[in-house]
Amino acid sequence: MRTYEIIQKKRDGKELSEAEIRHVIEGYVKGEIPDYQMSALCMAIYFRGMTLEETAALTFAVRDSGETLDFSEINGLRVDKHSTGGVGDKTSLVVAPIVASLGVKVAKMSGRGLGHTGGTIDKLEAIPGFQTEIPVDEFKKIVNQIGIAIVGQNADLAPADKLLYALRDVTATVDSLPLIVSSIMGKKLAADDDCIVLDVKTGSGSFMKTPEKSRELAAQMVEIGRRAGKRIRALITDMDRPLGFAIGNSLEVKEAIETLKGEGPEDLTELCIALSAHILELAKKGEYSECEAMARAAIENGSAFAKLVEMVKAQGGDEGYILSPERFQTAAYSLDVKAEESGYIVKVDTESYGVASLLLGAGRNTKEDVIDPTAGIVLRKKTGEYVEKGETIATLYSGKKESLTAAAKRILAATKVGKNPPKMQPLVLDIVE
Amino acid sequence: MRTYEIIQKKRDGKELSEAEIRHVIEGYVKGEIPDYQMSALCMAIYFRGMTLEETAALTFAVRDSGETLDFSEINGLRVDKHSTGGVGDKTSLVVAPIVASLGVKVAKMSGRGLGHTGGTIDKLEAIPGFQTEIPVDEFKKIVNQIGIAIVGQNADLAPADKLLYALRDVTATVDSLPLIVSSIMGKKLAADDDCIVLDVKTGSGSFMKTPEKSRELAAQMVEIGRRAGKRIRALITDMDRPLGFAIGNSLEVKEAIETLKGEGPEDLTELCIALSAHILELAKKGEYSECEAMARAAIENGSAFAKLVEMVKAQGGDEGYILSPERFQTAAYSLDVKAEESGYIVKVDTESYGVASLLLGAGRNTKEDVIDPTAGIVLRKKTGEYVEKGETIATLYSGKKESLTAAAKRILAATKVGKNPPKMQPLVLDIVE
Repeated sequence: MRTYEIIQKKRDGKELSEAEIRHVIEGYVKGEIPDYQMSALCMAIYFRGMTLEETAALTFAVRDSGETLDFSEINGLRVDKHSTGGVGDKTSLVVAPIVASLGVKVAKMSGRGLGHTGGTIDKLEAIPGFQTEIPVDEFKKIVNQIGIAIVGQNADLAPADKLLYALRDVTATVDSLPLIVSSIMGKKLAADDDCIVLDVKTGSGSFMKTPEKSRELAAQMVEIGRRAGKRIRALITDMDRPLGFAIGNSLEVKEAIETLKGEGPEDLTELCIALSAHILELAKKGEYSECEAMARAAIENGSAFAKLVEMVKAQGGDEGYILSPERFQTAAYSLDVKAEESGYIVKVDTESYGVASLLLGAGRNTKEDVIDPTAGIVLRKKTGEYVEKGETIATLYSGKKESLTAAAKRILAATKVGKNPPKMQPLVLDIVE
Repeated sequence: MRTYEIIQKKRDGKELSEAEIRHVIEGYVKGEIPDYQMSALCMAIYFRGMTLEETAALTFAVRDSGETLDFSEINGLRVDKHSTGGVGDKTSLVVAPIVASLGVKVAKMSGRGLGHTGGTIDKLEAIPGFQTEIPVDEFKKIVNQIGIAIVGQNADLAPADKLLYALRDVTATVDSLPLIVSSIMGKKLAADDDCIVLDVKTGSGSFMKTPEKSRELAAQMVEIGRRAGKRIRALITDMDRPLGFAIGNSLEVKEAIETLKGEGPEDLTELCIALSAHILELAKKGEYSECEAMARAAIENGSAFAKLVEMVKAQGGDEGYILSPERFQTAAYSLDVKAEESGYIVKVDTESYGVASLLLGAGRNTKEDVIDPTAGIVLRKKTGEYVEKGETIATLYSGKKESLTAAAKRILAATKVGKNPPKMQPLVLDIVE
């Protein structure tokens, strides 16, 4: 099988066979197919797209490119929740303890921040002592004992995705639906979960800027997950505004703690309850409304919060920080961003908020950058609220004083103030299953 | 300037600036831009195309990527003729001596066979002793002394093209108009000629299969040549049938000799006269009809043939072979291909004839292959002629006996016989200037 002919076939808009797709992925991981052929193929896929059959074959080839996990030693149903990436999205820190406290097993592998979006692993590492690299046997043992563990992506899992992602990142081929689907689902399916709820973000802060694109992504991921034998469902959720008030690693951990104590922002709480209820319904814990009530109760009776404390302790973290969040170190410098005019906040460019947070030190510009866990943004006013000229709309935190002004400029440019209150759309826009 | 953003810009269908194009070509030649970014960019160019401004900028960047030649030491107008590649196309061997015998200077750099097409350098090397690698100073001296020399492409000329071509060849990005234009013209403009006549082939034996694509290619090359200050013109010529009867290196040299003696095939003679006349007209030797008469006279009075003999001698070749072509070694094996039915030859797939010739040993399948100068095909019947069942339509020559049957099958499959004579189109389909 000649790689040249496979590139040519895709370039000419023809459907690749499963054997051709496997040839490419296996050859690429073995180093037999060079980067320059793979990047030409990725660009051809960018332009020509792929059929669902091709995307499924690509996903399974990525899944099978390395080790796949065996969770059979874990007793009970394993569930997972995956977000396509947003700004201020700390739902995993809330949802995982809720559902684990209700008897399903969460053996979760999470990622780091990507571009303007945050990552669960970076957030967890803001907790002093917390270990995110744990050997698989130890990881399974913790899940069996306390029902929950969240670790970083295993390096031996879906190596094709790591290679492909690094290549796509420098060749302008990230933004291609079949490549996104196969990247997310190739990794997900290499783990061994029974139920998966996907949180597909849509809008200015997400990678999919329109509901149509998000729905298509969701539909393909759900179908491919089903073909792999999973119980799976996707929620399309709004990322035209940051989720909650906090953006940045320790700031988000603190907000997650508040949410688990029943004192979190309304939007974040609502979404976490919904995600938890969908997971519990897939796990056959009851009708949706029953599952929703169970999730609310787990917050109200403190069992979800207690589960977070247990997890932090089991993974080497200092649970004192969870019990007394005021102990989290605060940033050396802060700056209040003041409104330049009075009116309703009608629209924000959420991606710019993410980039501002990254500038402050909460994310990485290059792989080598070290994250400042104290850096980030706390919103004081959100989309739909009225603000007086001179009133604080956000507070910025950073260890680099000079980054505050640049980030403040970005926040102001990204915040549109108008005379009339905007029409607000629901947080959960659609459910795909 | 970030290469990533340049790829993204082209991917999104935007026009690249001259500075961006130069950044890419210069960075690529220096090894600062990796193959995988360049191949992604080539694929984006394949899909999005380029404006004439972009193609011109790319061509000039390729031209300037290495040394450019200085022919100012050569006295008189320097002319060149370039074919986009065909089957049985030995016109350079005829046209160059004709025009050199009429007082213009031919300091020609030619290529080797590419795919199913032959190359002038491979043909010249079929002449025992003929040297195609000659230092530039020596090359210029020969041109000044006898008015003509044909050598291989200088390795320091347009190195970007060599790198790009090798990359495009393995990433299915050869067939892109701006990349073809910049490859041909980048090399041509790195040499220092005053007048250029382009022979743009069209039809089944060429790289451009339709007259429309050939015309577009011709128009862009002519415009870019003009911007570089050249007197330039393109002929669109028919490659739906092989040119002349001979395909293969020493077979073609012998046919070129016959043509220079006034005993060549009608189609080949006609095209060589036309190409010569256009070159002479660009060189201001007279009106077109006068130039045509001069070219015919150069054949009739023997001066063109004498010029070929002079050139062969000056470049170290044994002119005895030119004076007595029967001395050329003949192939160890031959096979007559017989018609399987009676009728008119209405159509041939010329590319298949080229591939058959390659199978016989006249071309290279891989870079390492050594050419058999005696291998090839002599057509006995051409498109438009009537053939009886069992009559020989072509004779195959090869040093590899086993290749004869496979090549014969290909020739038969590529030759369509019908009841009625086909409508013949003229050899020169259009002139673009």
